Amino acid sequence: MTTGTLYGVGVGPGDPELVTLKALRILRSAPVLAWPAPEDGPSLAREIVAAHLPGTQREIPIRMPLVPARFPAQEVYDRAAEEIGAELEAGADVAVICEGDPFFYGSFMYLYGRLAGRFPVEVIPGVSSLTACAAALGAPLAARNDVLTVIPGPLAEDEMTARLAAADAAAIIKVGRHFAKIRTVLDALGLAGDARYIERATMADQRILTLEEVGADSAPYFSMILVHKRTEAWT
Amino acid sequence: MTTGTLYGVGVGPGDPELVTLKALRILRSAPVLAWPAPEDGPSLAREIVAAHLPGTQREIPIRMPLVPARFPAQEVYDRAAEEIGAELEAGADVAVICEGDPFFYGSFMYLYGRLAGRFPVEVIPGVSSLTACAAALGAPLAARNDVLTVIPGPLAEDEMTARLAAADAAAIIKVGRHFAKIRTVLDALGLAGDARYIERATMADQRILTLEEVGADSAPYFSMILVHKRTEAWT
Repeated sequence: MTTGTLYGVGVGPGDPELVTLKALRILRSAPVLAWPAPEDGPSLAREIVAAHLPGTQREIPIRMPLVPARFPAQEVYDRAAEEIGAELEAGADVAVICEGDPFFYGSFMYLYGRLAGRFPVEVIPGVSSLTACAAALGAPLAARNDVLTVIPGPLAEDEMTARLAAADAAAIIKVGRHFAKIRTVLDALGLAGDARYIERATMADQRILTLEEVGADSAPYFSMILVHKRTEAWT
Repeated sequence: MTTGTLYGVGVGPGDPELVTLKALRILRSAPVLAWPAPEDGPSLAREIVAAHLPGTQREIPIRMPLVPARFPAQEVYDRAAEEIGAELEAGADVAVICEGDPFFYGSFMYLYGRLAGRFPVEVIPGVSSLTACAAALGAPLAARNDVLTVIPGPLAEDEMTARLAAADAAAIIKVGRHFAKIRTVLDALGLAGDARYIERATMADQRILTLEEVGADSAPYFSMILVHKRTEAWT
């Protein structure tokens, strides 16, 4: 018997209009959908495409505790992979709804790692938060021969400093509770003036703030800081 | 009188299904379209969305000589900006069709630099070649706290070596005629085994090759090499 295919489907950064035709086709036709969600409450990823779903598909929620004891929350992904794997075994395609792009720092990676060896996998790329933030800020991300570096907020202060010092352009992702440290690094490098902050890009509650306006503890997980040292590059 | 708005519209990496709903809405409704093309022949960017266009819009081709005497070809963009600016002045919106994402190493930057001060600009992010290549290769781009570095192929050998040595994951873009140099750098760093090559990702003539299979002179401009040193990160 032929097994099903696992689809990792990128649905973009939040604006329901930033979904691709290919994502919609696969999400509408797969017999089984899976999607990440908090322990309680709705799934942001599913809400992006909810208006397009027929409402007749089997659905597998992947609910993540707010404060996982370990990272990544292995048991949650183990259980989800088991449930998804059973559908694939039985011949049903399963489409996992992924915010942004599945392979750009996405949690789809944890299902991919568990299932890719056993089942066919197809990934549908989506608009990533990286370029969505640049568009929303009206700030080109990189041009010509710029080296662009994507720096996760959890990095240690000294490593972040070295990475930012070497970059022509940088995107600091997963800012969240690391904002105060990042601010210190930007100030020390004299880059605060080149930095632009945005949260929940393309969503209804998107906010663009100066670094001064961001409270040290208030940055959400879905926030990003773009830094560009060569503003003359695109003129 | 109100001026028109300049739209930079990302249409994704080549597969016509990887266009977003928002890109289609704007490209169908703008009275004027502009698009990049070679000196002779069709525009790849326009072809991606051609099936969706009503055929009644004014169109401004931006034709680039194959071997521009200078980079960027200032006169071509000066002339295009003048023509587009006249439409905006007259109150017409102009949508520029951009392969991939307008702010990710896109030539839209050169129009943006010339027109953004004078007219309202809105950028519609698209699926970038970066995540499209990762999806086509079936290779996660970055996970967890990976530092991801985007390295343009034209960089000098010593700078490229330093950037690659420092990266957890890297995407070398604009490979083209720089392939032999890049191969030398990867070999010297012992990274050839971690590197994956792809050209024309998501297009009908997409090819995935080993480094050995790529002829030293044969890599097209639309080619990319992904390098990931931490394959255990997503398992």
